[in-house]
Amino acid sequence: MNIGVIGCGYWGPNLIRNFNAMDNTTVVAVADKRKERLEFISKQFPSIKTLTTEANEILQSPKIDAIVIATPVSTHFPLGMEALAHGKHLLLEKPFTATVEQAEKLIEEAEKRNLRLMVDHTFIYTGAVQTIKKYIDNGDLGELYYFDSVRVNLGLFQHDVNVIWDLAPHDVSIMDYLLERKPKAISATGMAHFDSSIENIAYISTYYENNLLGHIHVNWLAPVKVRKTLISGSKKMIIYDDMEPSEKVKVYDKGVDIIKDKEQIYDMRVQYRTGDMIAPQIDLTEALKKISQEFYDAINENRDSLTDGKAGLRVVQILEAANKSIKANGKVIEL
Amino acid sequence: MNIGVIGCGYWGPNLIRNFNAMDNTTVVAVADKRKERLEFISKQFPSIKTLTTEANEILQSPKIDAIVIATPVSTHFPLGMEALAHGKHLLLEKPFTATVEQAEKLIEEAEKRNLRLMVDHTFIYTGAVQTIKKYIDNGDLGELYYFDSVRVNLGLFQHDVNVIWDLAPHDVSIMDYLLERKPKAISATGMAHFDSSIENIAYISTYYENNLLGHIHVNWLAPVKVRKTLISGSKKMIIYDDMEPSEKVKVYDKGVDIIKDKEQIYDMRVQYRTGDMIAPQIDLTEALKKISQEFYDAINENRDSLTDGKAGLRVVQILEAANKSIKANGKVIEL
Amino acid sequence: MNIGVIGCGYWGPNLIRNFNAMDNTTVVAVADKRKERLEFISKQFPSIKTLTTEANEILQSPKIDAIVIATPVSTHFPLGMEALAHGKHLLLEKPFTATVEQAEKLIEEAEKRNLRLMVDHTFIYTGAVQTIKKYIDNGDLGELYYFDSVRVNLGLFQHDVNVIWDLAPHDVSIMDYLLERKPKAISATGMAHFDSSIENIAYISTYYENNLLGHIHVNWLAPVKVRKTLISGSKKMIIYDDMEPSEKVKVYDKGVDIIKDKEQIYDMRVQYRTGDMIAPQIDLTEALKKISQEFYDAINENRDSLTDGKAGLRVVQILEAANKSIKANGKVIEL
Amino acid sequence: MNIGVIGCGYWGPNLIRNFNAMDNTTVVAVADKRKERLEFISKQFPSIKTLTTEANEILQSPKIDAIVIATPVSTHFPLGMEALAHGKHLLLEKPFTATVEQAEKLIEEAEKRNLRLMVDHTFIYTGAVQTIKKYIDNGDLGELYYFDSVRVNLGLFQHDVNVIWDLAPHDVSIMDYLLERKPKAISATGMAHFDSSIENIAYISTYYENNLLGHIHVNWLAPVKVRKTLISGSKKMIIYDDMEPSEKVKVYDKGVDIIKDKEQIYDMRVQYRTGDMIAPQIDLTEALKKISQEFYDAINENRDSLTDGKAGLRVVQILEAANKSIKANGKVIEL
Repeated sequence: MNIGVIGCGYWGPNLIRNFNAMDNTTVVAVADKRKERLEFISKQFPSIKTLTTEANEILQSPKIDAIVIATPVSTHFPLGMEALAHGKHLLLEKPFTATVEQAEKLIEEAEKRNLRLMVDHTFIYTGAVQTIKKYIDNGDLGELYYFDSVRVNLGLFQHDVNVIWDLAPHDVSIMDYLLERKPKAISATGMAHFDSSIENIAYISTYYENNLLGHIHVNWLAPVKVRKTLISGSKKMIIYDDMEPSEKVKVYDKGVDIIKDKEQIYDMRVQYRTGDMIAPQIDLTEALKKISQEFYDAINENRDSLTDGKAGLRVVQILEAANKSIKANGKVIEL
Repeated sequence: MNIGVIGCGYWGPNLIRNFNAMDNTTVVAVADKRKERLEFISKQFPSIKTLTTEANEILQSPKIDAIVIATPVSTHFPLGMEALAHGKHLLLEKPFTATVEQAEKLIEEAEKRNLRLMVDHTFIYTGAVQTIKKYIDNGDLGELYYFDSVRVNLGLFQHDVNVIWDLAPHDVSIMDYLLERKPKAISATGMAHFDSSIENIAYISTYYENNLLGHIHVNWLAPVKVRKTLISGSKKMIIYDDMEPSEKVKVYDKGVDIIKDKEQIYDMRVQYRTGDMIAPQIDLTEALKKISQEFYDAINENRDSLTDGKAGLRVVQILEAANKSIKANGKVIEL
Repeated sequence: MNIGVIGCGYWGPNLIRNFNAMDNTTVVAVADKRKERLEFISKQFPSIKTLTTEANEILQSPKIDAIVIATPVSTHFPLGMEALAHGKHLLLEKPFTATVEQAEKLIEEAEKRNLRLMVDHTFIYTGAVQTIKKYIDNGDLGELYYFDSVRVNLGLFQHDVNVIWDLAPHDVSIMDYLLERKPKAISATGMAHFDSSIENIAYISTYYENNLLGHIHVNWLAPVKVRKTLISGSKKMIIYDDMEPSEKVKVYDKGVDIIKDKEQIYDMRVQYRTGDMIAPQIDLTEALKKISQEFYDAINENRDSLTDGKAGLRVVQILEAANKSIKANGKVIEL
Repeated sequence: MNIGVIGCGYWGPNLIRNFNAMDNTTVVAVADKRKERLEFISKQFPSIKTLTTEANEILQSPKIDAIVIATPVSTHFPLGMEALAHGKHLLLEKPFTATVEQAEKLIEEAEKRNLRLMVDHTFIYTGAVQTIKKYIDNGDLGELYYFDSVRVNLGLFQHDVNVIWDLAPHDVSIMDYLLERKPKAISATGMAHFDSSIENIAYISTYYENNLLGHIHVNWLAPVKVRKTLISGSKKMIIYDDMEPSEKVKVYDKGVDIIKDKEQIYDMRVQYRTGDMIAPQIDLTEALKKISQEFYDAINENRDSLTDGKAGLRVVQILEAANKSIKANGKVIEL
């Protein structure tokens, strides 16, 4: 299967490396507006024949079966529609699109032409998230209470999108995948400390049925890198710390007993830990390797992928609502 | 100076120990409705003559100069008013009162009678917070951008107050002390997973002038204990981790350069750390020791204390607004 | 049972508190050469009638059934012999004695008079060590390979004993209890940086049958406090970190496959983690509470205690050999 | 400058990448006995013309100016002598040679022919070690007391060398570089748990003038990866933790006051931290990049490199003595 890649900034080379590593796929063409990036790619991947500044060369090439788009989000929709129009299967970088409307149109177009539409929600394919998913699906956590995620660091300020569009797609896609339900409402708080129109810190709250609460803190202005998610249920609680080299997921066999008698409560302080903690072994395969495989398989088996357009749409719906809430000073947005 | 203590649950004994340890103060009487607590106190502090189940014995005793109230918040106001009425100086446990109105009345009453009114905002007296205060007041952090605090653990569910009234007074009092300004508006999100009326998880956002943002996460349902505060300014950033045994405060000499050229931005990923980190030596004196001293000095010098009634009021205003916002589904409350 | 305590420095008050907390035992007399310590005790424990600077008052008192000795190690033997001579059961602080000969004499004397002789090897009674012991005794670790312990901090330099006699008794007693075997030989390295005769850093190696190796690093001159023990077996490995607030014991389901083919070895780097890690729930009861109970029970049931004189002797044998090795420039000492 | 690389196992590709990244050097030939490795290299570096299983093709090629040898240590000497005989400058992987005698002969040969002889002591070129070196050379640490290094993990068992030859070269080269003195004597302890002749755990003690003590723990059988070095002086102490993502070096402004009075000593326990801790910003440039540059510069400027043959020799002397001591059951080996 011949792959064309459009956009070779920070992430592009990783996509190329993984599609070239697979037996059944080869990256035959790469497009980027920046000549210096193309030179860099030619050094890194001398086997790639077509290196062009014109995306159309790839979008329209009859030799190409599938296209990977890793350009700024504002270009995802036009490039994506053009690719579909030429009968190409599509893998788009996250976030899927800049608006819900664009997402819906891409999905409709892909379905009409029976082409695969997939979004690179990388974390869904990590061993850590896959392990957490098993615990939740097995019912080990019991009834879910909340999902709390923190993704902060001294980040690179984007000039086109705010911190929500830059970092939150990771947390939102993980939350969407693990909880498997759509929020009833969303509210968000954010602040732009440098460019009045681009928030560099934001907090998103998502409200689900049955008192399930979601909360995400994304931040470009923190002194240390934090990637930490708390998931609490009635039976067990999970801490997912992506900065941990080996024990990324810790499952706590902890519950809560509500004791009215104050004295006993104070005793409880001592018996803090109520059960074992287990850090399950995690598959450390590179997520992008699994994504490339899933993209190929979905095309081959003519089926939806694990992170298809609909998954991308659900994420964009939450991002769009969060931004709407910020512009409305934290107003709760019903979905 | 003779001290009477009303309420001897978890915190009471610590207050007694510290007031007894001071030269100029002695705890002469203790009141608690629970006989078994009084027996416990008599074993621990056999020197204390008066042990009673009747608070009035203390409130009205002519031998007593000052009263410490460590009872549930709902009783702070009636007990406090009675104490002031009998000309006693007052140290109240946090939170100061259950409502803003109660706080204002206590302050008014104390001023009318020229009596000291002090709130036990313990953390303000820790070496950690005092150290951070110095950095902020020196201007080392530059313009303040945000204050983000997380205080979560597998906590004891209270049957009278929610997690905001239980845990947030710590963070709110620290935030009020460090930032030295009042929020323009407040919004909060919370959820009650067990008792429909008592939230066990909550997020509070506070909006200040000049884009300064505050955010607090309090939670009774987390598998591990977290006490972490991020304070970010234009010049430096601080992480205050109260769970660290020695290096509780870390000051990062980090800033942000906004580079439009994408390539350079990706290079920036490598040059992540932009300056030294310093963990200043911190005074480890027990905070309660300093509080007892401050209470005595304020009375002696007939002056306001570092955490006087007005400080207590400012904290209660935020707590009350946060609860109001939760009841209104996260509505922003102007102050 | 009436208890007398001789020596009330840092540890004494904890012993008193625990023996007073037990139903069947009461501390009736305390001796310390330092008047200010006796005053401190009288404030803390006003119920104690006899407070004296003369140990003999306690050693010879007919009202006293058992004696706890928490004095410098050099005095353990004479005080202990005198106590036994007066028919008192004995609990001695660690290290048991200053020499192997003294230990043997105390054991002999206690057996002759059928009196209990117990050593306060505190850590043996902690939930952490008890949990590790279970894993080892169950055979979960398989064949034991090594025991490596590090106990360092910015410590208080003793003027009478070196760092081995001060800190190593903890590690050696834990090692003796967990491994349940005696070393064939011992070698040690140490250095005195201040007082030429008192080592402030030392490394002890203990050699057992079947290639089992023990190693202990004790150090008064480290910037941070470390209390970390590695125990490795053919099936599982344990890390015991006493500085961890909750997860003190971590059991790693890890083994080693020896792959000759270099390529595969490099692959192995990726599959580093070969199984789950579990941090078992640990009993957080204060060790001293269990020690007091065990001392009482051993006397009551006329049986040896978990950490009897023989355990104390085995520890002193290793400490003595380690010091002998240091004086002989690291010479291996056969036992 | 044309570079030839002999040996392309785990480390080889990194060397090739860095020498190709430099302007003035190009890797023109690579030799490895394993055809699959050569194929791997041809994919990764298609620009390299000569790929051969015959080292001699490189050793004797007139087009090649300098040779990098990354083969098992047993082959370093014969390959190195052959390379020098053909007038090639040499960069050898660590450890430099399998014996002191081989090291001396290589140095002699290189000097005779005025060729550069350099050893890849990678860590010397890291920002962390360079930063520590500055602190020591500035005298900030005062008189040096000890160097304690731990390098353990679930390691790949080598079939040709033991854990000392595999891991200790890192610690020994760092120690040699930082302390800038040669030990008077060495002793070591080790154990082979699988192959009777190949130790998988070892402890090395190095004795210097003025009571300076060195100690290294290397271990292939630990459940977690530890890379931690303690360096203590009379004025300051350093912890170098290579597993820390950003704050690898921590400098503690801590000293020791020897207080004879026990009471005060116990007070000291509370005032544990005696000064600030600083984590200096560290240059994160890849060490191999600096090594390639240093190799080129040393050749170009016809001067010794920072890690020349003599540095390699000093490291091998310690490794050889440590192994001799292990075979002699921990006997102290005078140097």
